Amino acid sequence: MRKIGIIGMGHVGSTLSHIVIDRGMVDEIVLLDINQKHLKAEALDFWDAQSFLPHHTKIIAGDYKDLADANLIVSTFGNVNLTVESGDRFAELQFNVKQIRSMAEQLKKVHFDGVFLTITNPVDVITAVYQRELALPKNQVIGTGTFLDSSRLKKEIGERFKIDPRSVSGFVIGEHGNSQFPAWSSIRIFDNPISSFAKENSVNIDDLEEKTKEDAFRVIDGKGYTNIAIATAAATLIEMILSDSHSEVIVSHYNKKFGIYISLPAIIGRKGIVKDIYLPLDQKESTKLKTSAESIIKKTKLFE
Amino acid sequence: MRKIGIIGMGHVGSTLSHIVIDRGMVDEIVLLDINQKHLKAEALDFWDAQSFLPHHTKIIAGDYKDLADANLIVSTFGNVNLTVESGDRFAELQFNVKQIRSMAEQLKKVHFDGVFLTITNPVDVITAVYQRELALPKNQVIGTGTFLDSSRLKKEIGERFKIDPRSVSGFVIGEHGNSQFPAWSSIRIFDNPISSFAKENSVNIDDLEEKTKEDAFRVIDGKGYTNIAIATAAATLIEMILSDSHSEVIVSHYNKKFGIYISLPAIIGRKGIVKDIYLPLDQKESTKLKTSAESIIKKTKLFE
Amino acid sequence: MRKIGIIGMGHVGSTLSHIVIDRGMVDEIVLLDINQKHLKAEALDFWDAQSFLPHHTKIIAGDYKDLADANLIVSTFGNVNLTVESGDRFAELQFNVKQIRSMAEQLKKVHFDGVFLTITNPVDVITAVYQRELALPKNQVIGTGTFLDSSRLKKEIGERFKIDPRSVSGFVIGEHGNSQFPAWSSIRIFDNPISSFAKENSVNIDDLEEKTKEDAFRVIDGKGYTNIAIATAAATLIEMILSDSHSEVIVSHYNKKFGIYISLPAIIGRKGIVKDIYLPLDQKESTKLKTSAESIIKKTKLFE
Amino acid sequence: MRKIGIIGMGHVGSTLSHIVIDRGMVDEIVLLDINQKHLKAEALDFWDAQSFLPHHTKIIAGDYKDLADANLIVSTFGNVNLTVESGDRFAELQFNVKQIRSMAEQLKKVHFDGVFLTITNPVDVITAVYQRELALPKNQVIGTGTFLDSSRLKKEIGERFKIDPRSVSGFVIGEHGNSQFPAWSSIRIFDNPISSFAKENSVNIDDLEEKTKEDAFRVIDGKGYTNIAIATAAATLIEMILSDSHSEVIVSHYNKKFGIYISLPAIIGRKGIVKDIYLPLDQKESTKLKTSAESIIKKTKLFE
Repeated sequence: MRKIGIIGMGHVGSTLSHIVIDRGMVDEIVLLDINQKHLKAEALDFWDAQSFLPHHTKIIAGDYKDLADANLIVSTFGNVNLTVESGDRFAELQFNVKQIRSMAEQLKKVHFDGVFLTITNPVDVITAVYQRELALPKNQVIGTGTFLDSSRLKKEIGERFKIDPRSVSGFVIGEHGNSQFPAWSSIRIFDNPISSFAKENSVNIDDLEEKTKEDAFRVIDGKGYTNIAIATAAATLIEMILSDSHSEVIVSHYNKKFGIYISLPAIIGRKGIVKDIYLPLDQKESTKLKTSAESIIKKTKLFE
Repeated sequence: MRKIGIIGMGHVGSTLSHIVIDRGMVDEIVLLDINQKHLKAEALDFWDAQSFLPHHTKIIAGDYKDLADANLIVSTFGNVNLTVESGDRFAELQFNVKQIRSMAEQLKKVHFDGVFLTITNPVDVITAVYQRELALPKNQVIGTGTFLDSSRLKKEIGERFKIDPRSVSGFVIGEHGNSQFPAWSSIRIFDNPISSFAKENSVNIDDLEEKTKEDAFRVIDGKGYTNIAIATAAATLIEMILSDSHSEVIVSHYNKKFGIYISLPAIIGRKGIVKDIYLPLDQKESTKLKTSAESIIKKTKLFE
Repeated sequence: MRKIGIIGMGHVGSTLSHIVIDRGMVDEIVLLDINQKHLKAEALDFWDAQSFLPHHTKIIAGDYKDLADANLIVSTFGNVNLTVESGDRFAELQFNVKQIRSMAEQLKKVHFDGVFLTITNPVDVITAVYQRELALPKNQVIGTGTFLDSSRLKKEIGERFKIDPRSVSGFVIGEHGNSQFPAWSSIRIFDNPISSFAKENSVNIDDLEEKTKEDAFRVIDGKGYTNIAIATAAATLIEMILSDSHSEVIVSHYNKKFGIYISLPAIIGRKGIVKDIYLPLDQKESTKLKTSAESIIKKTKLFE
Repeated sequence: MRKIGIIGMGHVGSTLSHIVIDRGMVDEIVLLDINQKHLKAEALDFWDAQSFLPHHTKIIAGDYKDLADANLIVSTFGNVNLTVESGDRFAELQFNVKQIRSMAEQLKKVHFDGVFLTITNPVDVITAVYQRELALPKNQVIGTGTFLDSSRLKKEIGERFKIDPRSVSGFVIGEHGNSQFPAWSSIRIFDNPISSFAKENSVNIDDLEEKTKEDAFRVIDGKGYTNIAIATAAATLIEMILSDSHSEVIVSHYNKKFGIYISLPAIIGRKGIVKDIYLPLDQKESTKLKTSAESIIKKTKLFE
């Protein structure tokens, strides 16, 4: 039996649950939300759709105790905006950490021992907080990190070169946020380094990094939130984890060298991170990565 | 090539587009919305997810001219609330009809000749308006009608009897709205008439009709809108139409006897309604159906 | 985790394994065959296809010990042809029962406690033998019975009326073999009894039963074996069982009244048969069912 | 509407048709075989399975005239074994070319203008013959070439390094046959060159090329034929072509430099080959490629 839990029925949590149910990815899905009326409404909407679907999924508008035997939990619980420079920032952080503690308390009580995936921002910091509070092995706690940013970069590259984004390989690495960056030296198009491919095709790629960053803002600006792409990214990770795929991914996971959670390539499986994958970086990229790591370290300290 | 268009990127239009793309149902999907910024944001969110998907779908943030060769168009364009008894009702109706006319004008200009599916309420009336304005053959214009209501009834029955909703057959028929009703005499559970099955299992089904109607309100009350179930219903119809499935469905389609669009069983295929299916009704149900039809006739006249 | 085993890599076992892997239905599939060289070749062919698939399935060319924690095992192990009236019949039966005993011995040793599904003919008799030898609860041992025959009947009806076979409901019941028969009184087309629908459409259905029986022979005669339909039927049952679907099916399962395994409607779930479903029969059908049951009783005694 | 034709209902043709139908990849599939009785039996087996499937596919046991409006045709028509050094070789070749001519004649008569994909060996030569006889644009005629060989190599690499074969990128190139070879210099594991990855992990890869070649023989030796992997490969190409995916693939397509059909990377879409992709080769590989091309040139001349 495949069983997962989704915490938080906001736009992302609802869309992610929808993908999981529509694809028939699991046998049981437990939905949780603080607002019980909202939770029941979401579940009802899913239940109403059941007779149209070929798959059978047990959909439970549940509680933490229903998560005891879940293989995986995704927390889509609200975001802390560290970029907003206001007097309320620490108050907000403190409020969120308090909620995370309460959630972790409940999950420890039911002896949850699966993989815990979070998409809450600042994701690298929050993932570290979750790991500490849940007291799960470090490899079992994961943040979506730059998984979506990498997909966005591939989309931009695909658009620029008029090719399929799936023909691009490589990653945006580091902190999910301002200090993230594409590891250009390892990005390849059709098995050719992007730099030579760009030169050959007389395509300018200098602004692609900036465009990728703007992407999320354009989506939020236009529709008020982002849900489709981040939910699809999370669903991809869920599938990889449940099927023990041993795929290579770019997610926020514990890095021994820096002592923090940060996005670098790794192999993912049923128990979370299986092992790290070495990504060759040039001198400039190594420096950027160090700077990005330091930014996470600084923020992580705020939560200790 | 399979090509469809979705008009309106509200909650339903966006969720429906998402299902179509996530399942890889078509080769090309054209998204339309009056608000260009919002439209572009939705498209961006879909594009960002592309590299996670196994299917390849060409997603176009487009215009009416892109719909010329579409096999099918779904209009999720905003709802007219006829139940609200206010002085503005007719003004609102007039406004909507004006928009429908403008939309139809554009589609006629590009010689669209596929199936047109609408979910806009009051759906039976609106479907009739669309058919007239689009000047398409009557069988090519369809409203979702009581397709979702029937699924909701199956869900309620399933919950009551603790069985899978897919083990229930039968329909909610008539006007999609206050005068709709389950054709109880033809509803069956595991190939047994529901009445005898209920008696055998000592289950009370008297309140199921009421509960089914409350369903939509509970979803709207709890989350502010409904999207999952109605979008899944529409996606089911899209698949049935594109694959020329000749499945039996309950949708709002033209009924010769009453001279209106109303939900009764029919076979659906590539060019819309293939033929009507005879549904045996008892005396009481026949009377109810007549009353329901009269309600539609009355409202349809408002739009002539 | 979803894990199943397929015993026997003949045409049916190989095609069934293919469906399971191609659809990504499970996380682990264990393939078994007496011929190790053949088994390894099948596994190799599946492994070679892996990099083309979106799903990740662990494919194991294995042994009985690998089945200890399987949720379900399907035995496609060779068929006993009871219809051939020859002096070798009993010898063949004895040989097969001997193999079944050896298989059951191995499965008991590893404490297999999932659902056991068999398609080996004479399926009603063989299912009973498996249940006895495996010493599993009666509800956990199932035979495909008339599940495929019912689908074949729907196909014939669909073809005759030029409708989709999925618009037909009802079952072929009784022994899978010569004494099976369609329970005509409960077969419905588009929610109408088939008899009235046939009369209305001036369609003759008298020869449909015979045509359905001929079907399997025409397939075997033309291609030497049947694999696609029976494997698809088995895959459908696997999905229903693993997802705990509580769907209504027609399979060979233990019937208290007759004291044998026979095909009658039932609800199926994670632990096999959940409960029987009452199928209203007319007088003539009841008599036929009794005759069919007696045929199974007679054959079952040969194996005691 | 998506429509394809499969010519030849042997093991590969039947398995390929099965995948296409089971996945619901097309709206119409036309099956062809010289043996009408066999063809009808295959179609019957597919039809019998229909009521178990969620998708609706029109399955036609047809003729060349049914292929007029097909988007794509796959010929799985019997193999010429050029490796067998016998006196009958030329006779066999002549016989096959005669059959290809007759087939092409029929397809030209119905003005087929889609993509033509063949898997018949010697595939590079046969693809050229088909292109000439069909008189279709060179980009619309494709051979599976080393598409499966590349997948097999990934499988072997995956097994050797205990990683997912999908984490390996790169190709087996050249003639599909004895002179094919992996373009080692461009093969990468987790974005690292395979040579450095192998050294780091102390893994010997010298025998992988040989093992990959042996693969097909082991499958054939063990089960008498190969069907799963080659059919899955063809299904992947079908999906890429129909969805106009613009994916990078390694297939046998026309190469201007050599003036023959040979497997080198290219982008594939709705009208076949969209454009060639440059694959950086080292000196040794370039020489090998030239030798491989010469082998094709020599054989192609036999068919002129």
